[in-house]
Amino acid sequence: MQISTQPIDIDEAADLAEMFRLLGDPTRVRILFTLLEVGEMTVSEIAEVVETTETKVSQGLRLLRTAGTVRTRRDGRHIHYHLDDEHIRSLLELSRDHLAHMKPTV
Amino acid sequence: MQISTQPIDIDEAADLAEMFRLLGDPTRVRILFTLLEVGEMTVSEIAEVVETTETKVSQGLRLLRTAGTVRTRRDGRHIHYHLDDEHIRSLLELSRDHLAHMKPTV
Repeated sequence: MQISTQPIDIDEAADLAEMFRLLGDPTRVRILFTLLEVGEMTVSEIAEVVETTETKVSQGLRLLRTAGTVRTRRDGRHIHYHLDDEHIRSLLELSRDHLAHMKPTV
Repeated sequence: MQISTQPIDIDEAADLAEMFRLLGDPTRVRILFTLLEVGEMTVSEIAEVVETTETKVSQGLRLLRTAGTVRTRRDGRHIHYHLDDEHIRSLLELSRDHLAHMKPTV
């Protein structure tokens, strides 16, 4: 083995770890996949699909915005949430595919 | 908005959250990106690049194997570690790209 590469920068690794950590929660994962399927939604619409309280959805969305995975669009009194960009869409789809292929066939 | 989709299964969301949670650590992120760049490495080779102890690398690798992101190949007395598959490679590259494009230009 030739070690010719530079290891990933410590700060960048910390930022990536923080992003993954913020994704590492079942409710937040469900919010993301709901947005992936549906597109743009309000807090109450997400709460209905994910079957949890609006408070929990709001908390989850706040952290997902911190993680840079979710963005908002204001429409009068309403705030609509959607995935940040194509990177996030692909990242979610890849993660799901990966998990599916890892599972032993029953 | 039309809600016509099924929300992601609760068990699947929990499994995905667990995978992300296991990726959410700076040392583990550095191990993964080192494997991404170099390919296949032993614990001591990784420890050298990541500049940490072999104990910490071994602990990190054990969790990454649990997360299904790293696999091993035994070669006599040596154990070589490598990324599980192309899903993981793409997932890491996408995450890094995403983070890079999020950062405001200084």
